[in-house]
Amino acid sequence: MEKSKQIETISIIGSGNVASSLGFVLLEAGIKIKEIYSRTAKNAESLAKKLDCSWVDNLNVLDPNSDLYLIAISDDQLSHIGDKLGHLNGIVAHTSGSQPINILKSKKGSSGIFYPLQTMTKSQLPDFTNIPICIEANNSDAAEQLKNLADKISTKVVYLNSDQRQYLHLTAVTVNNFTNLLYNHAHDVLMDKEIDFSLLIPLINETADKIRNTHPKDAQTGPARRNDKAIINKHLKLLDDYPDYQELYSLLSNQLIRKYHDKL
Amino acid sequence: MEKSKQIETISIIGSGNVASSLGFVLLEAGIKIKEIYSRTAKNAESLAKKLDCSWVDNLNVLDPNSDLYLIAISDDQLSHIGDKLGHLNGIVAHTSGSQPINILKSKKGSSGIFYPLQTMTKSQLPDFTNIPICIEANNSDAAEQLKNLADKISTKVVYLNSDQRQYLHLTAVTVNNFTNLLYNHAHDVLMDKEIDFSLLIPLINETADKIRNTHPKDAQTGPARRNDKAIINKHLKLLDDYPDYQELYSLLSNQLIRKYHDKL
Repeated sequence: MEKSKQIETISIIGSGNVASSLGFVLLEAGIKIKEIYSRTAKNAESLAKKLDCSWVDNLNVLDPNSDLYLIAISDDQLSHIGDKLGHLNGIVAHTSGSQPINILKSKKGSSGIFYPLQTMTKSQLPDFTNIPICIEANNSDAAEQLKNLADKISTKVVYLNSDQRQYLHLTAVTVNNFTNLLYNHAHDVLMDKEIDFSLLIPLINETADKIRNTHPKDAQTGPARRNDKAIINKHLKLLDDYPDYQELYSLLSNQLIRKYHDKL
Repeated sequence: MEKSKQIETISIIGSGNVASSLGFVLLEAGIKIKEIYSRTAKNAESLAKKLDCSWVDNLNVLDPNSDLYLIAISDDQLSHIGDKLGHLNGIVAHTSGSQPINILKSKKGSSGIFYPLQTMTKSQLPDFTNIPICIEANNSDAAEQLKNLADKISTKVVYLNSDQRQYLHLTAVTVNNFTNLLYNHAHDVLMDKEIDFSLLIPLINETADKIRNTHPKDAQTGPARRNDKAIINKHLKLLDDYPDYQELYSLLSNQLIRKYHDKL
C-alpha cells in the first residue's frame, strides 16, 4: 500500500491569533512555514519575522508549490479569500468551526478543514497536545495528509463532517463563552459585596473536573435540582439590583425544575 | 492575653453528605466526634459506626458538654432544630450557605456559622485543604474558636457576615449548578450528533483555569462578544429542535451583546 504524501511545507493565510498559534506550533513540530499572507502588509511582515519566513500581501504571488495553504481568517472574509485560491496545487484548508467545507468549492483538487478546538490569545501559546483538532477533506488522500499533520501537534485528532463540526462549535461557545458570562455576573456581585472572587475558584475547578467522569445529568445539584423554591425566590430577590443576572437565574432555574421535576 | 479555648469535642446534628464529610475530616484532624444525632435512628447509627462514636435520635439526650454542636441538616429543618438547642453550653453552629445566624436566636450564649463552600457527595470525601470555610459568630470568642477549628482542615478560612454569605452562596449556585446545566445541554446535542463529549474537556478546563488570573470581563471571547450576528443566528437555527437550549443561547448572547456593544 502506498503511503500517503506528508505535508512538509505550509503557506499560512492570515496573521491573527489562530494563524500565529498554529504557525509557532507547526514550526516547533518541524514543519516548514514558507510564507505568511495578510492583506495588511505590516501584520504579514510582523508574524513572518517571528516565524522566520517570507510574507506577501497579495494572494496572486503566493508560492504555488506549498503542500498546504492553511486559512486562518475571520469567517466573513473566508468565502471571499476561498474564491481566490482555486489555482493552487496543494491542499487548501480552513480553520473555522462554523464554516462548511464547500465554502472552498472553487478550489480544484483537494480542500479540507483543520479546526483546532480552543480559545486562542496571542499573548500565550496554548499547549496543543490536548487540543482536539477536527479534520475533514473532500478526498481521502487529503484527509489522511491533514490527519498526519494534526497528529504531529495533538493527541486528539478526529474526523468530523461539516454538520458535526458546526454543532461542536456551538457547544464550545456554550461551555466557554456562556460559562464565562456566568463567572462575570458572579464577579460583579461579589465585588459589590466586598467578597473575594477567588473563594469560588475551588468550586469552579471542581465543577469542571467532575464532568470528566460523571454525566452532567448526574453531576447536577443545587436548589433548582431539589426544587427548593424558598431558596430560589430568596436568590431572585437578592438580585433585584442585577436585572440581567436575575433574568438568567430565573430561566436557568426554571429549566432545571422542568428537567428534573416536571414529568408532564 | 488569654488564649481562646480550643474546640476539642463535637456533636454533629445530621447524617447527610455535609455531616458525613465534615465528620471524617474533623476526625482526621484529631478532633473528638462525640456523637451523631439524626431523627432517623438507622442513619445516626450508620454514620456513628463509621466515625466510631455514639449516636442519638432525640435532641434532649445530646451530651450537654460538647464544645461545639455542628448542625448539618436541610435548610427547611434548621429553624425547627435550632429552637431545641437553647439549653446547651457549647457553641451551636450551622453549616448552611443561605440561612442567617439569627435562625439560631433561641440559643443562649454562643452561636455561629461554619459554612464549607463546596458540593459534597457521600461517595467521595473532598480534599478540604482548598475548600473555603466561612465563619460567623455572635461573639468574638466563638468566632475565634470556630476559626481555629476551620484552620485545622482548610487553608482558606474567612469571616463573612450573613448578608455576604448568602451572596456567596448565590454565586456558588451560579458557577456550579448553572454551568453544569450548560454542560448538560451541550452533552445532549453532541450525543444526538454522535460527537464525543470529551472533545470539550480541554476547553472546559481552559475556561475554568483562565479565570484564576484574568478578570472574566477580559476573558470573554466568542460570537456574541464580537457581535457576530451571522454566527449567532446560525447557531439559533441549529437549535430549533432544542427549545430550552435555544432560549438560553438567545438570552446569553443578547446579554453579552448588550454588555459589550450597546453603550446607550
